[in-house]
Amino acid sequence: MSQFWSPAVRELTPYVPGEQPTEQVIKLNTNENPYPPAPGVGEVLRQYSTSHLRLYPDPTSSMLCSALASAYGVHAGQVFVGNGSDEVLAFAFQAFFCHDAPLDVPSITYSFYPVYAKLYGVELRQHPLNASWEVDLDALAGADDRSGIIFANPNAPTGHAHSPAGLEALLKRVTDRVVLVDEAYVDFGAQSAVALTERYPNLLVTGTFSKSRSLAGIRLGYAIGSPELIEGLTRIKDSFNSYPVDRLAERVGIAALEDTEHFNACRNHVITTRERTRTQLEALGFEVLPSQANFLLVQHKVYDGSQLFAGLRKRGILVRYFNKPGLNNFLRISIGTDDEMNSLIETLEVLCG
Amino acid sequence: MSQFWSPAVRELTPYVPGEQPTEQVIKLNTNENPYPPAPGVGEVLRQYSTSHLRLYPDPTSSMLCSALASAYGVHAGQVFVGNGSDEVLAFAFQAFFCHDAPLDVPSITYSFYPVYAKLYGVELRQHPLNASWEVDLDALAGADDRSGIIFANPNAPTGHAHSPAGLEALLKRVTDRVVLVDEAYVDFGAQSAVALTERYPNLLVTGTFSKSRSLAGIRLGYAIGSPELIEGLTRIKDSFNSYPVDRLAERVGIAALEDTEHFNACRNHVITTRERTRTQLEALGFEVLPSQANFLLVQHKVYDGSQLFAGLRKRGILVRYFNKPGLNNFLRISIGTDDEMNSLIETLEVLCG
Repeated sequence: MSQFWSPAVRELTPYVPGEQPTEQVIKLNTNENPYPPAPGVGEVLRQYSTSHLRLYPDPTSSMLCSALASAYGVHAGQVFVGNGSDEVLAFAFQAFFCHDAPLDVPSITYSFYPVYAKLYGVELRQHPLNASWEVDLDALAGADDRSGIIFANPNAPTGHAHSPAGLEALLKRVTDRVVLVDEAYVDFGAQSAVALTERYPNLLVTGTFSKSRSLAGIRLGYAIGSPELIEGLTRIKDSFNSYPVDRLAERVGIAALEDTEHFNACRNHVITTRERTRTQLEALGFEVLPSQANFLLVQHKVYDGSQLFAGLRKRGILVRYFNKPGLNNFLRISIGTDDEMNSLIETLEVLCG
Repeated sequence: MSQFWSPAVRELTPYVPGEQPTEQVIKLNTNENPYPPAPGVGEVLRQYSTSHLRLYPDPTSSMLCSALASAYGVHAGQVFVGNGSDEVLAFAFQAFFCHDAPLDVPSITYSFYPVYAKLYGVELRQHPLNASWEVDLDALAGADDRSGIIFANPNAPTGHAHSPAGLEALLKRVTDRVVLVDEAYVDFGAQSAVALTERYPNLLVTGTFSKSRSLAGIRLGYAIGSPELIEGLTRIKDSFNSYPVDRLAERVGIAALEDTEHFNACRNHVITTRERTRTQLEALGFEVLPSQANFLLVQHKVYDGSQLFAGLRKRGILVRYFNKPGLNNFLRISIGTDDEMNSLIETLEVLCG
């Protein structure tokens, strides 16, 4: 605590990301993709003329916005890009949720949302998941006098995704404030809601290059929505940092978008490995929630979650453990390579044997 | 204007960066370095194993912080890095200047400060420059009940820099709030105040790789100060975006810091070109303010600033024109290569002939 801090800084509860270990471990804790990015990314780096780095980037990242617009079948004016979807989400909180009313969120969802809420002084109204561990869209839509709605779809850390039809039912009921659907994990088997942005000017869909594009290390995220929502985000961005996306990141993102074959091969491999792992975990006595993401949320019928976390860690396997009510017997396991998942299963056979 | 925007978004006056033209022009409008970054930067890109990009970066950028700490003779715990010094400045506004009192600033300084102030609801108290176009440190120190003090040193767009002794006199008088000295341009002939951070826990010095390191395109900035100030910035960062510096940017920054020979050659070349250009401009009838930065602020004794700006632009030379009171007869001219400055002088000979 410092006398020099603004009063609000003292009250913050910063987000704690999963560990980035320096020693050799099997890393299944931050939902990274086990496969490398598209080969074209390497070409970008090897051929890039570094003399261009002396110049500021395009403040609007217009080439990357156009590439995303093509990929999603929207206009470039419906696309916003930022330094990771975390930055895009932060801008969205400030641009759309700072009204004098609570923000409706599921009680279990991406754990950064409550952190943003505190940073921007937004009150949260939390809604429990339903009995099937799904985001309760009916409860979210039922509240009134809100500043907005936000949730991840597929949700984190559960993995369940609602269909676009389910989301549309929500959008028909909530028209006065922004509904933000965070699609960080959508490419692993769920359906995107992007097409709905054409009909619902209050729908903002966010996405990231960190998961399905294997580019967590380059920090690229985006939002797709009506031009008025994109303008709101742009006003915040231009009051914060004119150039959040650097020259290399823009080129790297475009190269990743161009290679749909690599993209599909990687995500299909992850899906296949996920379903095989599910079967193996169930055979070991785990309850495994249905997942359309690149992770599984699991709890063992006998063994304690925190002890399994510690046992795996001791044996060089990092998974994610959330020490919070409702989740504190669960492990969230990112889907790695087949070899990594085989090691996980072999180790769990020992720990649960 | 959209019904979905937060009320504060409507009131923002976003920063307008200098143009990034796509056609071939002589670009002397955004204070970029005319020389390429250190050759080691190219090596980083050519040798980088892109498979690492699938993983998130180190959230603390510890290797880059250590490299900066070595370069400046401080401890790594006194260094913070971000996605350009614009992001670092934004974090500093939120971390240190959100008190219930005005922020003291010069009336002419980096034009992003008033934008941040509006974004974070900070009231500004503006102090005119003195008769020599210098930041009036005495006036800044003389006000009381403040949220802090911020100015650029060398100042922008004037180019004048105070000495560390002058800054220390200010710091002796102001001990209760953060004094932020923005050293974006310090490497072109001014003296850094970093050494004073050891004795004044409320001094925060910010810097950038965009100017003297020729890396505007990679977006890297930093702050140096007492551990309690660094912790304040880190709390904001970790409530906004865990990983603002991507994996490539961190490596590129380290490569740039390692090459002191290239760094010194480039900045000395810029200084030499600046002083030659000054003499030539004075011979053409310009008043040229003394500058320790990589730009010159100039006005012609006869010809109107906005017309000269338009005339240069028409002939393919971009400089910066600020249409605001006190500055609207001036041009800010970034220092380019010798060839670029020769073209500028030749064109001005025509326009002022």
